[in-house]
Amino acid sequence: MAGRGILPTMEGTGDASHNSSSATVTGTGQKAAIIDGKAIADQIRKEITAEVSKMKESVGNVPGLAVILVGARKDSSTYVRNKKRACAEVGILSFDVTLPEDVSQEEVVARVKEFNDNPAVHGILVQLPLPKHISEEVVLGAVSYEKDVDGFHPINVGTLAMQGRKPLFVSCTPKGCIELLKRSGVQIKGKRAVVIGRSNIVGTPAAQLLQRENATVTVVHSQTPNPAEITREADILVAAAGKAELVRGDWLKPGAVVIDVGINAVEDLSIKKGYRLVGDVCFEEACHVASKITPVPGGVGPMTIAMLLSNTLDAAKRAYGVANA
Amino acid sequence: MAGRGILPTMEGTGDASHNSSSATVTGTGQKAAIIDGKAIADQIRKEITAEVSKMKESVGNVPGLAVILVGARKDSSTYVRNKKRACAEVGILSFDVTLPEDVSQEEVVARVKEFNDNPAVHGILVQLPLPKHISEEVVLGAVSYEKDVDGFHPINVGTLAMQGRKPLFVSCTPKGCIELLKRSGVQIKGKRAVVIGRSNIVGTPAAQLLQRENATVTVVHSQTPNPAEITREADILVAAAGKAELVRGDWLKPGAVVIDVGINAVEDLSIKKGYRLVGDVCFEEACHVASKITPVPGGVGPMTIAMLLSNTLDAAKRAYGVANA
Repeated sequence: MAGRGILPTMEGTGDASHNSSSATVTGTGQKAAIIDGKAIADQIRKEITAEVSKMKESVGNVPGLAVILVGARKDSSTYVRNKKRACAEVGILSFDVTLPEDVSQEEVVARVKEFNDNPAVHGILVQLPLPKHISEEVVLGAVSYEKDVDGFHPINVGTLAMQGRKPLFVSCTPKGCIELLKRSGVQIKGKRAVVIGRSNIVGTPAAQLLQRENATVTVVHSQTPNPAEITREADILVAAAGKAELVRGDWLKPGAVVIDVGINAVEDLSIKKGYRLVGDVCFEEACHVASKITPVPGGVGPMTIAMLLSNTLDAAKRAYGVANA
Repeated sequence: MAGRGILPTMEGTGDASHNSSSATVTGTGQKAAIIDGKAIADQIRKEITAEVSKMKESVGNVPGLAVILVGARKDSSTYVRNKKRACAEVGILSFDVTLPEDVSQEEVVARVKEFNDNPAVHGILVQLPLPKHISEEVVLGAVSYEKDVDGFHPINVGTLAMQGRKPLFVSCTPKGCIELLKRSGVQIKGKRAVVIGRSNIVGTPAAQLLQRENATVTVVHSQTPNPAEITREADILVAAAGKAELVRGDWLKPGAVVIDVGINAVEDLSIKKGYRLVGDVCFEEACHVASKITPVPGGVGPMTIAMLLSNTLDAAKRAYGVANA
């Protein structure tokens, strides 16, 4: 087994480690191609802008996204602001309600139901986390599964898991991962894929989507005794563990495609704000082993909002009976 | 890699093939322990009988299972008859409706809804397959998810896939597979499990259940180019491919536990009826490699009906507010 961090990039054969021109102990070997999530997300937003404009012409309406924010968490407020700005940029109307931290669960559910009944609203997003006295299960379950642009409703989760069924919505981050693979020309069918993490929001739906694309999928999680042994079998690795730089260079099969979902702040006193963002993958090591890799930031992150816009557009198309392009 | 069919049973090391006393080319080596599904199912039915009788004493009612059969398929009629007999044996009331092959979808849905509204009915089972003019999705979706003892409703499928949620019902065959493992003392947590097949009824829920028990799970399917390479990594193998004797001895890791869900009829002119039933695993080869294995018939088969009775009992307990033992 190769040591950490200074692995050569190999294309198919195991010979490269004996070839001093392609890789050296100083780690200056050939590097993985970067999957540019920002550029791909920009392209998708352009496509959505064009479709929204066509919809306005043909049916006289545009898609609408409602966002419910409870409390004043700084990170949540930032996310909501970013989502509203992204909507505005592509021509999607945004509706929003901000409720106080101590609002009752009934009141939140009542607001959800108002949006369920509002025909100008095609997608409803409840910003998580909710305060502890409010049940996420109850509130998310109250969102009409036909407006569930986050893909969190059990009916959409269930139909995603079922062969021969098609969920109305798929959770945005895993949908973004698949879109990155497809738009980077990565073949999924027949490949071995490993997903690290089994969360409802990323790991589990990512695994299901990869399987729907006919990959053979293994899910590695906190109770897996030998994760590196398993990730080394992966042609495609999706890392969604939420642990900074968990995946080292020697966790990867040479030539693997790496999608890094993690966004972790680690202390770095050498820069002004005192921290930097890193993924679940040690990028510096991985880029000498992988054939393609997403950076953090600028990889999966920008895709999440793009997929939210895409889900909202799809919902509006269904509501207005507009065929897919 | 060892050749087919004449593999020794090895406990951890690869040396046994050189040890002529533990295995020979005549295949007389040590054999896997048989997981006796019939005996385990009998034990479960005894437990259910006792609980039903306790329920009758405490709340004055027993569980009720409704079965809807459309058409006159011989196999379906046999299954329904067996289910009714199994209900009677444990004290569960059975309700049944047989509808003609050409019944309308509306009529089937109307019957489902009658059972939804009948408080004496705690579980509803629609015998599959339905005639082609009737949508399985519509009919199964009409069953109240609180009476969905087959675990086919998208809400139950969805909550099974979600961490932190508990489905009201889990599909009977995969539930039976897990029960066989547990009652045979097989540790699941931390093990590598491979499921062959990704059907909605067996493969997918079996994989989810194994993951819930903290196994690291890989799903192999028809688009997997190298299935044997992957199954050889499995400590626990669940074969649900529907292909007679697909899994050969050299597909298995020595000491693996094998759960064979397949029931396939293969021609055998040496016996009177002209065919015999075999699993998805070549039992004669596998029993020299595996540490434990289910036979076909007499393995998973008897567990399916036992789990249906168990699901019906659970539904009645919820309806009457009876705590779990």
